[in-house]
Amino acid sequence: MPTYQGPIHDVQFLLNDVFDYDAQISTLPGFDEVTPDIVAAILKGAAEFSEDCLVPINLPGDLTGCKWENGNVTTPMGYKAAYDAYRNGGWPALAAEPEYGGQALPASLALIVREFIASGSLSFGMYFGLTLGAYRSISAHADDALKRIYLPKLADGSWAGTMCLTEPQSGSDLSSVRTRAEPDQDGAYRITGTKIFISGGDHDLTENIVHLVLARLPGAPSGTRGISLFVVPKRVPVVENGVLTGTVPNAVSCGSIEHKMGIRAQATAVLNFDGARGWLIGDPNGGMRAMFTMMNSSRLGVAVQSVGAAEIAWQNALAYAKDRRQGRGPGAAAQTPDGGPEPIIVHPDVRKNLLTMKAFVEGMRGLYIEAAIALDVKARHPDRAVSDAAEGTLALLTPVLKAFISDCALRVTEIGIGIFGGHGYIHENGMEQLYRDARIVPLYEGTNAIQALDLVHRKLALEDGAIVERYFDAVSKLIVEQRANSRLDDMTAALDNGLQLLRETTAAMCRHANDDALEAASSASDYLRMFGYVALGATWLRIAGAADAALAGSPERADFLSGKVKTARFYFERLLPEAWVCHSAIMAGSSSVLAISATEL
Amino acid sequence: MPTYQGPIHDVQFLLNDVFDYDAQISTLPGFDEVTPDIVAAILKGAAEFSEDCLVPINLPGDLTGCKWENGNVTTPMGYKAAYDAYRNGGWPALAAEPEYGGQALPASLALIVREFIASGSLSFGMYFGLTLGAYRSISAHADDALKRIYLPKLADGSWAGTMCLTEPQSGSDLSSVRTRAEPDQDGAYRITGTKIFISGGDHDLTENIVHLVLARLPGAPSGTRGISLFVVPKRVPVVENGVLTGTVPNAVSCGSIEHKMGIRAQATAVLNFDGARGWLIGDPNGGMRAMFTMMNSSRLGVAVQSVGAAEIAWQNALAYAKDRRQGRGPGAAAQTPDGGPEPIIVHPDVRKNLLTMKAFVEGMRGLYIEAAIALDVKARHPDRAVSDAAEGTLALLTPVLKAFISDCALRVTEIGIGIFGGHGYIHENGMEQLYRDARIVPLYEGTNAIQALDLVHRKLALEDGAIVERYFDAVSKLIVEQRANSRLDDMTAALDNGLQLLRETTAAMCRHANDDALEAASSASDYLRMFGYVALGATWLRIAGAADAALAGSPERADFLSGKVKTARFYFERLLPEAWVCHSAIMAGSSSVLAISATEL
Repeated sequence: MPTYQGPIHDVQFLLNDVFDYDAQISTLPGFDEVTPDIVAAILKGAAEFSEDCLVPINLPGDLTGCKWENGNVTTPMGYKAAYDAYRNGGWPALAAEPEYGGQALPASLALIVREFIASGSLSFGMYFGLTLGAYRSISAHADDALKRIYLPKLADGSWAGTMCLTEPQSGSDLSSVRTRAEPDQDGAYRITGTKIFISGGDHDLTENIVHLVLARLPGAPSGTRGISLFVVPKRVPVVENGVLTGTVPNAVSCGSIEHKMGIRAQATAVLNFDGARGWLIGDPNGGMRAMFTMMNSSRLGVAVQSVGAAEIAWQNALAYAKDRRQGRGPGAAAQTPDGGPEPIIVHPDVRKNLLTMKAFVEGMRGLYIEAAIALDVKARHPDRAVSDAAEGTLALLTPVLKAFISDCALRVTEIGIGIFGGHGYIHENGMEQLYRDARIVPLYEGTNAIQALDLVHRKLALEDGAIVERYFDAVSKLIVEQRANSRLDDMTAALDNGLQLLRETTAAMCRHANDDALEAASSASDYLRMFGYVALGATWLRIAGAADAALAGSPERADFLSGKVKTARFYFERLLPEAWVCHSAIMAGSSSVLAISATEL
Repeated sequence: MPTYQGPIHDVQFLLNDVFDYDAQISTLPGFDEVTPDIVAAILKGAAEFSEDCLVPINLPGDLTGCKWENGNVTTPMGYKAAYDAYRNGGWPALAAEPEYGGQALPASLALIVREFIASGSLSFGMYFGLTLGAYRSISAHADDALKRIYLPKLADGSWAGTMCLTEPQSGSDLSSVRTRAEPDQDGAYRITGTKIFISGGDHDLTENIVHLVLARLPGAPSGTRGISLFVVPKRVPVVENGVLTGTVPNAVSCGSIEHKMGIRAQATAVLNFDGARGWLIGDPNGGMRAMFTMMNSSRLGVAVQSVGAAEIAWQNALAYAKDRRQGRGPGAAAQTPDGGPEPIIVHPDVRKNLLTMKAFVEGMRGLYIEAAIALDVKARHPDRAVSDAAEGTLALLTPVLKAFISDCALRVTEIGIGIFGGHGYIHENGMEQLYRDARIVPLYEGTNAIQALDLVHRKLALEDGAIVERYFDAVSKLIVEQRANSRLDDMTAALDNGLQLLRETTAAMCRHANDDALEAASSASDYLRMFGYVALGATWLRIAGAADAALAGSPERADFLSGKVKTARFYFERLLPEAWVCHSAIMAGSSSVLAISATEL
């Protein structure tokens, strides 16, 4: 069974040495109590919760999966107890507002907690993330009466949330949503339709489940401009004199759950709404906008989950490579004194795979933490110019974070299986489950192909290209700063080359996005990947600079810090060059992609 | 549930238009009856067997898996019936010798049959491949008495075979095998030890199972030079006057079976040998050599299985992309007349993924068929120089075929899930099983990292480098030939560049292999991958040339043939450039891989 230790040390390094978290966060209004001690306590608690409550149930939960019987879903053994521990620990309330019982801690800190929880059980973490999403939607778009009923229950975790978008005929393309909402008495609506692939759609963890449902009002325009967002609880709150006194069943039923490749402790449900009572939130026909606010934060959440999944694969691959003795390494110097077999970490190929895992996992953690800090700056910074800038960068990077990180995380879990060799293929060792669980991340919350189109068509065009220019300028500035350190010359040079190429490619992609949608669509995924490699390069340069600077003053962290610098070097030499393949694919143009007809395929 | 049609048309194109199979094979001694009609009948029969008997049991068999109870393994429902149909069809005897009941058909044809069977059920196909491996080992190394007992039973499929190499402490490194063989009466031995990961180690498909077991004789040298090969049947044949009259139990028991990520209808067993009766085959302490003969053919078999696994993923992804309607394509011209959603194949990203699948699957099929023909030429060609040349090329290419094809096949099945989007994650649609099943191919029969070391250290050095030079010269010759066709200019130029770079890189790798084992080991996988991309490029150039030549005379195949040319172009523009990344990784050298210590990781 896999083991796990919350990567507190690495997170603290990123917060303190790389991003100056305290200075950035505790100066924001409302966060003056977010001291380093508070942060440390939260990290320790989250790590312990994941290590003690989640890791032990994850492997057995995969074998049993969720059970559906007579319309009710039972989660695997141990999930209810873990959920109760999670509630009792106050975790659902972490980033919620104080007036609804929340602790009002930074969203960035809640995202780091989410990483730790995702490492312990990706299935479990999804219940957390979806409830948070429902909380945010209601908080942002519902009226006060609804907020007073729902938010305290979501914040204390006694109710959970879902997002109901997909229908059998309507997946990536939400314009074909058919679920209907008919006006009912009291300003409520009757919702009718079938939703599929609903994560957390039914389960036994909470008293109630709050579904956020996309549906059409009578006479609504066709397409996405005619979709509205509704709160549809599994059990309808009974409110007397403004006080919640109980709940009664609603006409929502769980028709079945899916048999999936992974995240088998997560109930992915078919939900039937048969005239269920629902309440409109946001504007009529404004459902897509309301949903997109939430989707963007969900997409950042997927990046965080992905890092969590990759982290536990990396930890176990490293431990196995140090422990498993098999054969001898190639260099004479590497042999054991007794002439017996050596740990497989002596093999350069194993080491290269470990370095690939480490470079992706630790770099991606830096990438998401930087974005997570921007999320708090965007929400709280008093200077509008600063918060707008953070918002712009975040909007630009969201599709890159979602798609590039989920793809790389999946690759990390795949490499993890390989390091275990045949033993990686065996369920009990847990590595194959980590891949299966992580296989969902590139697929959901908008497939990675859709993220690429979002980047090329919407995000590059933000403020007529000024947002992406500003991002590139920030990377340029970082390169100039780090040039002061001649020990990093090879890295600054490599990133500079990558950035130049990305700037040129971006100009070409912007032209395509305006003139030739087919050309843009043919290269969008390659472009996003190239962008991701350069962005990760920027993060690694920043990490290497911070680690190198800290080395002289922190002899007790010497191995940790020099390991960072060496991993950065590996990234620039062995991984960043993949950006050039992306570039060559983009430059090859669309003709070979488009020339072939469906009958020739 | 996935559907499948044996790719007879594509195989016939490769045999007739690309490789001139009839001229190459039917001129070999003993193959004069292998007419195109016979070949066509075999292909048709194999396709039907896989379509009718295997595809329907593959998805349900994954859910139930094999069951172990009281030491006996039961295969999933339908597997015994499929095995009986397979026996009754005479399939096990296809390539066996006539004196043992075989049909003496070409090994190349048997390998194509194996591809079709692997598409239908990778689990089922392994029983086939292992039995063939046991047949070959006994045929090549055992004495006549053993041959007369075992070979007819293996050829008619009433007995099955296994290869028992791995032990808990001895996986990739067989030097640490501990299983012992003590001399017994009658020239037999008593075998004692535990073997793990034994595919087909126990099952209910046959009357008996013939284990080929690596073990040590008393006083044998340590390491691989002290390992011998034994035939150890599950039930010991009772022979009276040279006639097999029955069998009695042997001291072999199945201790458990593994719970695996995939190939769950294949029993992967722990076998306990408790003084089991066994018979030495080959020389004492010559077990590794005897095993390696078989391993090399098994490794080609893995390449073939991999193509089978990728083929069914490709067929279903293509069908889904043509059928699933969702959203609209980017070009105005692409829209449907009714304004409704379009099949997702109109999206350039989907099309690019489909082309990637097609380019890999169909190219890899060409690659293995060329090698399979060399296998027959090696075994049968009367001119020793020709057969030796075939043997050399085959030895060189075997690690490339095993590792590159299994890696690319896995990638194809992963892309297949992506084309289905969220639906790819659902068990009933079958795509996720194809990945899980295929995940084993890079791991077994020598991990792909070991293939890379084999290529760099053993295969490049064959005949002092003359074998690899001859291979490169053959590719050069192909390029020169195809230059006559100006319509392929872009492709010949791309391949020529790739080949030049590969030649230079090969020279560097040969130097490393002699001087610096750590440097060689740091780049071996990248080098193998680079070699694979160029070799696949050579196959695609050959295919494009043949298709282009046939176009004028075959209007009824116009779509098929022009599709080949266009897929070749896609390969050269979009996939071959990955060879450059491998090159850049190799040129970066080992320092970033080796600089980091285990404690810094």
